Amino acid sequence: MIKRILIANRGEIAVRIIRACKELDIESVAIYSTADKEALHVQLADEAYCVGPAPSTESYLNTSSIISVAKLTNCDAIHPGYGFLSENPDFAEICRECKLIFIGPSPEAISQMGTKDEARETMRAAGVPVVPGSVGIVASIEDAREIAEGIGYPVIIKATAGGGGKGIRVAYDEAELIEGVQITQKEAAAAFGNPGVYLEKFIEDFRHVEIQVLADNFGNAVYVGERDCTVQRRMQKLIEECPSPALTDALRAEMGTAAVKAALAVDYSGAGTIEFIFDHHQNKFYFMEMNTRIQVEHPVTELVYGIDLIKEMISIANNNPLSVTQADLKSNGWAIECRINAEDASNNFMPSAGLINFYLPPGGYGVRIDSAVYPGYKIPPYYDSMIAKLIVHGATREEAIARMKRALAEFSIEGVKTTIPFHQRVLKHEKFIDADFNTKFLETYDVMNDN
Amino acid sequence: MIKRILIANRGEIAVRIIRACKELDIESVAIYSTADKEALHVQLADEAYCVGPAPSTESYLNTSSIISVAKLTNCDAIHPGYGFLSENPDFAEICRECKLIFIGPSPEAISQMGTKDEARETMRAAGVPVVPGSVGIVASIEDAREIAEGIGYPVIIKATAGGGGKGIRVAYDEAELIEGVQITQKEAAAAFGNPGVYLEKFIEDFRHVEIQVLADNFGNAVYVGERDCTVQRRMQKLIEECPSPALTDALRAEMGTAAVKAALAVDYSGAGTIEFIFDHHQNKFYFMEMNTRIQVEHPVTELVYGIDLIKEMISIANNNPLSVTQADLKSNGWAIECRINAEDASNNFMPSAGLINFYLPPGGYGVRIDSAVYPGYKIPPYYDSMIAKLIVHGATREEAIARMKRALAEFSIEGVKTTIPFHQRVLKHEKFIDADFNTKFLETYDVMNDN
Repeated sequence: MIKRILIANRGEIAVRIIRACKELDIESVAIYSTADKEALHVQLADEAYCVGPAPSTESYLNTSSIISVAKLTNCDAIHPGYGFLSENPDFAEICRECKLIFIGPSPEAISQMGTKDEARETMRAAGVPVVPGSVGIVASIEDAREIAEGIGYPVIIKATAGGGGKGIRVAYDEAELIEGVQITQKEAAAAFGNPGVYLEKFIEDFRHVEIQVLADNFGNAVYVGERDCTVQRRMQKLIEECPSPALTDALRAEMGTAAVKAALAVDYSGAGTIEFIFDHHQNKFYFMEMNTRIQVEHPVTELVYGIDLIKEMISIANNNPLSVTQADLKSNGWAIECRINAEDASNNFMPSAGLINFYLPPGGYGVRIDSAVYPGYKIPPYYDSMIAKLIVHGATREEAIARMKRALAEFSIEGVKTTIPFHQRVLKHEKFIDADFNTKFLETYDVMNDN
Repeated sequence: MIKRILIANRGEIAVRIIRACKELDIESVAIYSTADKEALHVQLADEAYCVGPAPSTESYLNTSSIISVAKLTNCDAIHPGYGFLSENPDFAEICRECKLIFIGPSPEAISQMGTKDEARETMRAAGVPVVPGSVGIVASIEDAREIAEGIGYPVIIKATAGGGGKGIRVAYDEAELIEGVQITQKEAAAAFGNPGVYLEKFIEDFRHVEIQVLADNFGNAVYVGERDCTVQRRMQKLIEECPSPALTDALRAEMGTAAVKAALAVDYSGAGTIEFIFDHHQNKFYFMEMNTRIQVEHPVTELVYGIDLIKEMISIANNNPLSVTQADLKSNGWAIECRINAEDASNNFMPSAGLINFYLPPGGYGVRIDSAVYPGYKIPPYYDSMIAKLIVHGATREEAIARMKRALAEFSIEGVKTTIPFHQRVLKHEKFIDADFNTKFLETYDVMNDN
């Protein structure tokens, strides 16, 4: 039984995990960089240790320092949160070697899903729909030309070692393809040490719909509904909802079943997310990638399905079977999350670090706040600009939107610029209200200036 | 359709109602005393008007001033909240005369339930169990003696015009009875202008269990489960939970059915609560009184039954039929509320008004805060000392307790003493954890000093 967890993260997700530990009577050990000495996760954990200076490579990515703290403080497990070391198979492997339970899947599963063309082939073999494209990496320019002609332009050229929007290029014709493959190979070799690229049909008009899965060490896996994360800016999610307004029950079941297949194909263990490209015109979905960790937007799933995903991760790591069956998982109402970033949306989302001199989050029925800031907290300039997740639950999408609007209006943060005004604009935008948008919503409409 | 509501209250319940109005796109008009100029409800409402000086009789009970504001600002309805004018039949009557919708039951229903011996007789006639005792007020000392002998000592002597713990005396024998009746009559004449008293069997060892009811203007009524409010100090509730750990499903249905009968017997409309004495040894329950308004502890019901009671009240006042049937109302999990008072529990719950110089409420999954304070807020000394309601929801009572403990530990309020340490003591008390207590829990155990 896990008695003491080191949380290899910072910010709201570290606080989220500490909260689950406290409720489970598990001791929590925080780590922090010198820039995070005053951080809330440091104050809330049972113990906290500095692991290095502000740059993440020297602290939150400093494997040896983190492992040392875990061993010296007698932790039996490490929760990596999201980002940082959460999808690093070497880190999961070192945990295993050091007899620390890594709260997440095996290093092998992380690897299989982390290499994009390998993941694509694994999914294809498992019967999960993938976007039409090359089988494995392209062997030559000639090979690329043939494949592109077969699937039809435009195509997307992707570095197999890329991710998060990096190492990607679109080609609308043969000339662009030839140039694109060559440049991407060269860039990928330099950036990732791996020049391999593969091709996919470029689907331009789609929604981002992802499935939450849970799998245990006994071959059981369930899907816990979907999240619609279509509202993005430069591939960064800003608003997420559960359920997706674009899915029917039949499609949800089909997508969920595909996601479970995907998880089982890599002997997945823990909580993971299968991201899909959802072609809402054709009602077809294609595997995009799997995030082999807890997701920022997990709370919308928790509120709709009434399941504590962090506790479930810890339970699975404790080698318990899943606490729920597929039949137990019933959806209830509608949840929306707005990521509140310390950014000035009216000035090209310029980050706005600094001192929070007044802070009063909204409250009342159906409102959840996951945040790591407090009055008097100074936001350091080194990290992600997300300072709070505001999540609401309502009986219907309409009620959830109304509740989010009133919660945003109540949310009082002074001292730094935040994206609250941006969210207020989106929530009253006709296209958002009608759920009539794709991932280009924020490129198509100037929500900060439209009526 | 109601378009504009005056909220005849202050503090967290005013904020609660304003939030519902915002989500329903109804305009909210707040009132305030000069002492409440900086209050949160004043800041959050669409408009706010001062109705008089700090003493409640001159402001929050100042009927003519409140009605004037409502009429002058074109409100079409008044929500009275709890306390103040909420159970004043004359106020409800004035609203009717002024063509303002009183969001609550008719003046007649308030009256019938407000006069204690009348309510008792109405309930008896409707087939709702009442505590054995006199039929109506006692006619004479001789009458009282005969009744007391019939039901057996100890008996409780209650002024029919009393309430909230006032005008009540217990007699363990005939001598105490004779003296008690005479003193109570004299005191009641002086305090309430009505010397009438009645007798009831004094049940010493009981739990306070109450049923939430909703009734519309078309003769439909439902019960929305129960709340256990047994943890009290001097008849003031401190912790409430839903469901009650003392009820079986069969008892819940029986008590709920009795509560619906009680509501229908007075043509009730809106949200109301039937309070019962629950004899947990005999598994018998007796009508105590009906609160003809929203209750402080309503959030635990909202979290377990997934229904917004304030919105339901407004919908009923709008002359809509109930939005739910009895069969729709399914309970889900467990909720607990702790009332956080600005009091020093280690010093006899001495009130502690003053400046809040740091305020950070807890957050995360399953945590709800209903409060009207903020960093820099100065608690005025004139009103109730409750400054926040912390409500948690969990899958089970164990999880709800664990969650409440972690939320209390996170809750940071500096500048005034609060009852957070008291709640922390109660939540780790063996008798609370075992749900093995009656209304004398806090008299029986010295929770502040016990291990």
